[in-house]
Amino acid sequence: MIDVGIIGATGYTGSELIRLLSSHENVRLKAVGARSATGAVSDLHKSLLGLTDAAFCDLAIENFTECDVVFLALPHGTSSQYAKSLVEAGVKVIDLGADFRLNDIEDYEKWYSADHVCKDWMPGTVYGLPELHRAEIQTSDLVANPGCFPTSIILGLAPLCKAKILDPALIVADSDSGLTGAGKNPNERAHFVNVNENVVAYNIGKHRHLPEIVQEVEGLLGADTELVFNPHLAPINRGILSTLTVKVKEPLTEDALEKLYHEFYDDEPFVRVRPRGEYAATKWVMGSNFCDLSLHLVSPTTVVICAAIDNIVKGASGQAVQNMNIMFGFPETQGLKQLPLCP
Amino acid sequence: MIDVGIIGATGYTGSELIRLLSSHENVRLKAVGARSATGAVSDLHKSLLGLTDAAFCDLAIENFTECDVVFLALPHGTSSQYAKSLVEAGVKVIDLGADFRLNDIEDYEKWYSADHVCKDWMPGTVYGLPELHRAEIQTSDLVANPGCFPTSIILGLAPLCKAKILDPALIVADSDSGLTGAGKNPNERAHFVNVNENVVAYNIGKHRHLPEIVQEVEGLLGADTELVFNPHLAPINRGILSTLTVKVKEPLTEDALEKLYHEFYDDEPFVRVRPRGEYAATKWVMGSNFCDLSLHLVSPTTVVICAAIDNIVKGASGQAVQNMNIMFGFPETQGLKQLPLCP
Amino acid sequence: MIDVGIIGATGYTGSELIRLLSSHENVRLKAVGARSATGAVSDLHKSLLGLTDAAFCDLAIENFTECDVVFLALPHGTSSQYAKSLVEAGVKVIDLGADFRLNDIEDYEKWYSADHVCKDWMPGTVYGLPELHRAEIQTSDLVANPGCFPTSIILGLAPLCKAKILDPALIVADSDSGLTGAGKNPNERAHFVNVNENVVAYNIGKHRHLPEIVQEVEGLLGADTELVFNPHLAPINRGILSTLTVKVKEPLTEDALEKLYHEFYDDEPFVRVRPRGEYAATKWVMGSNFCDLSLHLVSPTTVVICAAIDNIVKGASGQAVQNMNIMFGFPETQGLKQLPLCP
Amino acid sequence: MIDVGIIGATGYTGSELIRLLSSHENVRLKAVGARSATGAVSDLHKSLLGLTDAAFCDLAIENFTECDVVFLALPHGTSSQYAKSLVEAGVKVIDLGADFRLNDIEDYEKWYSADHVCKDWMPGTVYGLPELHRAEIQTSDLVANPGCFPTSIILGLAPLCKAKILDPALIVADSDSGLTGAGKNPNERAHFVNVNENVVAYNIGKHRHLPEIVQEVEGLLGADTELVFNPHLAPINRGILSTLTVKVKEPLTEDALEKLYHEFYDDEPFVRVRPRGEYAATKWVMGSNFCDLSLHLVSPTTVVICAAIDNIVKGASGQAVQNMNIMFGFPETQGLKQLPLCP
Repeated sequence: MIDVGIIGATGYTGSELIRLLSSHENVRLKAVGARSATGAVSDLHKSLLGLTDAAFCDLAIENFTECDVVFLALPHGTSSQYAKSLVEAGVKVIDLGADFRLNDIEDYEKWYSADHVCKDWMPGTVYGLPELHRAEIQTSDLVANPGCFPTSIILGLAPLCKAKILDPALIVADSDSGLTGAGKNPNERAHFVNVNENVVAYNIGKHRHLPEIVQEVEGLLGADTELVFNPHLAPINRGILSTLTVKVKEPLTEDALEKLYHEFYDDEPFVRVRPRGEYAATKWVMGSNFCDLSLHLVSPTTVVICAAIDNIVKGASGQAVQNMNIMFGFPETQGLKQLPLCP
Repeated sequence: MIDVGIIGATGYTGSELIRLLSSHENVRLKAVGARSATGAVSDLHKSLLGLTDAAFCDLAIENFTECDVVFLALPHGTSSQYAKSLVEAGVKVIDLGADFRLNDIEDYEKWYSADHVCKDWMPGTVYGLPELHRAEIQTSDLVANPGCFPTSIILGLAPLCKAKILDPALIVADSDSGLTGAGKNPNERAHFVNVNENVVAYNIGKHRHLPEIVQEVEGLLGADTELVFNPHLAPINRGILSTLTVKVKEPLTEDALEKLYHEFYDDEPFVRVRPRGEYAATKWVMGSNFCDLSLHLVSPTTVVICAAIDNIVKGASGQAVQNMNIMFGFPETQGLKQLPLCP
Repeated sequence: MIDVGIIGATGYTGSELIRLLSSHENVRLKAVGARSATGAVSDLHKSLLGLTDAAFCDLAIENFTECDVVFLALPHGTSSQYAKSLVEAGVKVIDLGADFRLNDIEDYEKWYSADHVCKDWMPGTVYGLPELHRAEIQTSDLVANPGCFPTSIILGLAPLCKAKILDPALIVADSDSGLTGAGKNPNERAHFVNVNENVVAYNIGKHRHLPEIVQEVEGLLGADTELVFNPHLAPINRGILSTLTVKVKEPLTEDALEKLYHEFYDDEPFVRVRPRGEYAATKWVMGSNFCDLSLHLVSPTTVVICAAIDNIVKGASGQAVQNMNIMFGFPETQGLKQLPLCP
Repeated sequence: MIDVGIIGATGYTGSELIRLLSSHENVRLKAVGARSATGAVSDLHKSLLGLTDAAFCDLAIENFTECDVVFLALPHGTSSQYAKSLVEAGVKVIDLGADFRLNDIEDYEKWYSADHVCKDWMPGTVYGLPELHRAEIQTSDLVANPGCFPTSIILGLAPLCKAKILDPALIVADSDSGLTGAGKNPNERAHFVNVNENVVAYNIGKHRHLPEIVQEVEGLLGADTELVFNPHLAPINRGILSTLTVKVKEPLTEDALEKLYHEFYDDEPFVRVRPRGEYAATKWVMGSNFCDLSLHLVSPTTVVICAAIDNIVKGASGQAVQNMNIMFGFPETQGLKQLPLCP
């Protein structure tokens, strides 16, 4: 049994962590920290009425130093200070923000238009995508939980990258995201009337998730790429569907393509390769930690992959719990056995 | 550990039973029966890929007679024959259909325009609303699981009925239901384009859930009532919100009203009375077995109650599992501890 | 050809006025006023790109005194000052806000928790529901355009009120509204994630539209009533469906009920009584100025009426244009001939 | 004033033709033909109650030979026989189906798995995209109205094709469509519960709209291309958003890119190039005949274009009316002046 803390528990990833951890047998939720909220957690997260007697504490570091692990769910730029203090106090940290995802600090500072406050303190952080970096996660004190879009896109491309057959000249990633990805604070973009009955792109060519996608894809492929990432908002609450169009350097058959993906993923507890003819759908993974992939061979050298996740489970809090399980030697699926809520 | 069967597992209540039972420690899913479907269950219920190796069997009665309990999820009129054979074979039955909900067979035959095939065989069936009939459920071999609308409406009215202060002259129940309540077979009413961006009533004055509502309300109240039930379809997947407007025979204060409901429900694991000022919302119960109630005193003798459930959990499969737990002496919340999926 | 102004043109009713007036042959849009917005109207209302060269002006009264009529689309409490100045300058006014809807100033001050700034200046205002007050509207200088919920509820009840057969003891009005009714400013209640996949009531017993409903219903009926109004938000953009449950003082047949409504409405250009067996649906009126009514006789003395409108057309801007047409002697349907956008 | 007929008026494009033509000053709706429906048109298209006294006639050719023009809204394979008979009788034809869109009959027979019944009778048909083929449309007796996806994609790519700077090596078209595009007949794919809260691709690499897209793009470009078309269903009623990712053969600036599109489209009444920084959205064109384009220069040689249309207006019935206007010398915007219904 370990003691767990959450710093920044007022948003969607915070309440989702509480939901998932509530069914985890080896975890005690010790400290639920919020900058602004006070009082009972269920006063804010109203679905939890009667289900938790947790109360918000403030973010003073001493509220969390007794924890074994702390999840940080903070805006970028604010995680670093907590991360450093906690790691130095012997607490493991899983950061759901962006501060430690990019290996190259200059990249970070360019894309996030901010100085990195921990420039001189860079521990052995690891990009927390278990399917790629499980071994490093096991021994890390500070795991940078991937972004939601990147999770779907990197998992969709990884087998082709690893096999070095992906043509790096042009990779197109079109993604539709549900609105939980746009955060809990009311704003014009997420106003119901603006979202409902609408499909619209945003931040084409400049979404902050792009550099971490490129970092991981190029890392696997061992080559520079041109990857175009076109994010969209779709009128759903949960879910990301990424449709990835790529060329491969040698002709493939459907059998060969499927074999590649099955070999890569069949031992993974949370990646499912859909049977031939099916299309990965956000509905089939909702509320679960699965990433569903479907493979579509358009020509012998043209592949389209659809990747579907629940953006606040495998795309955020669920993956964070998975990372925690790896870090502490728990069964990797513990607390993550909820079946998809479908329909 | 008991062996469980499902007869009629291709619909939404069938897949929901599988979802809920998958986390139940005392249950082994032994037989999953379908009239038309064959092959792997996950070929039909695609969210279950990799999560179950169950296969559909046909509905031959001998496929189910080794079970300890069987859930019937069949169209009305077809449950009776299975129920009789199973009970006579010593198998407990929970019928999610309508065949055994009405005490008065004439009522059944009038509202369902059909002869009741078990007219001459009427076992000690019980209307399976645990909050009202827990003791009888414990000892029953055949539980008639309530309809979705009735669950929300009866739970919303019960404390006022039991206290005999409800004015029977006019009770108005307006309900909005999500589309899972309209079944899985494609039809015009449930065609996306017809539902989306629409709110519409249906079956006013003639919905088949009306007689079971009246039976339970009048049973508690000990008086005849006029209850007007106005069902609507709202463009959501899961959830029923019932707004109940009633007069009471003696003036109430907010304190007195809340006391009445808290005394009635505070020991119930699945009914939550929302704090004053909140409005029960389908979102706060989605995916869970909760019925949330909010109380609104409009004048000293006029009360509005909002009751929210997930129609395929507390309104169907969750309540069925709750009934099973009671029948077998398991903890009543076993298999039903999933927190609401919110947002 | 008349010159028209709009004061407060940044919200949904403002853009809808522009949409409707654009097809009105006798109207020139002269002044489009906004408190905060400046520049081209189509910079704010982006669907209008290329369709208007109008620019926002500020709200200085002299920008509007040359108009023949001005629509006020302002928060309550702020219309009065503009109304007075404009009427005194000889400009006709149609106020889409609440400041002049209630005949009883004390009612206004109680429900809106505010002093009425024009208490001492009360011109011959009229409640601008053409089906009830057409003659007074024709000669009025200041028309108070009804609220959206009241439009649907009053039109649904009027024939029974006028015939004096409505039982005033208990009238229940349950309404579902789309989110355009909740305004354009981002706020928690209208945040996509909170609205989508949710149905929830609000302001039961205390919605500010209640007193105007009661005023008109009691005025027609000539008796005090108890009217319970239960407003809800449904996850749609446009549309209100009101389901009205009433008792009548003498037994009715379906024929008699339909005759009553047809006689009352058959000469009305914007009220449609649906054929027997149909249910009024928001989808069938979307984008149009229609109010659709369906009649459901539940018992000889119990009637349910469903009333559907587009809340920003017949419930706001369309009705305002209809009032303008009446005030200026134009054909009542001019500028309002758009067919419903269905599907 | 011309006489107009519709053959196949029971679907969404049929009712939309009626909606649009109702405001067209030079058109009399003479014959509304249906295979199965009989009786009043408004009995089927319920939003039209009271708005038309048209009745369905059967599809006997003599019901239509007195018309000046007939719109065919029929399943592929069935238009040809009507088209031939009508043209031979001197009636102009606008076919909203696929039978005459492809210049190469072998292409048709391959993609539609059917013999072309008019193989030996091929009149001077023209692909009815006015922005590309206005001159031929003017003189044609048989216009093949484009598919909905192709309209958005071809308009989005045309300026780059025409300028011969599009790199043909890989063009990726990702499209999200609303459900009206999937037709009016209930089916599993369009069942509300399957669509709502879901985003999913379908027919990747094998959608029947692909060959007409390729035909027009290659025609303009004068080169073979590899164009990958990834269609998706999004949970909205109306609208297509196509996101087009392309490489160009010489470096562009944002100014140069915008100039190219403005020069191509500024005289077009129904194509709007959004100001820099905006993203084309289905919401801004709903109910109108506009195609909105937004341009996003991701690198000097990488362009993303977003193209938004209402799939049953510019993607079907609106474009058909536009073609009719061109064929008969009416102002091109007649009957198409409805402003977008936004929000």
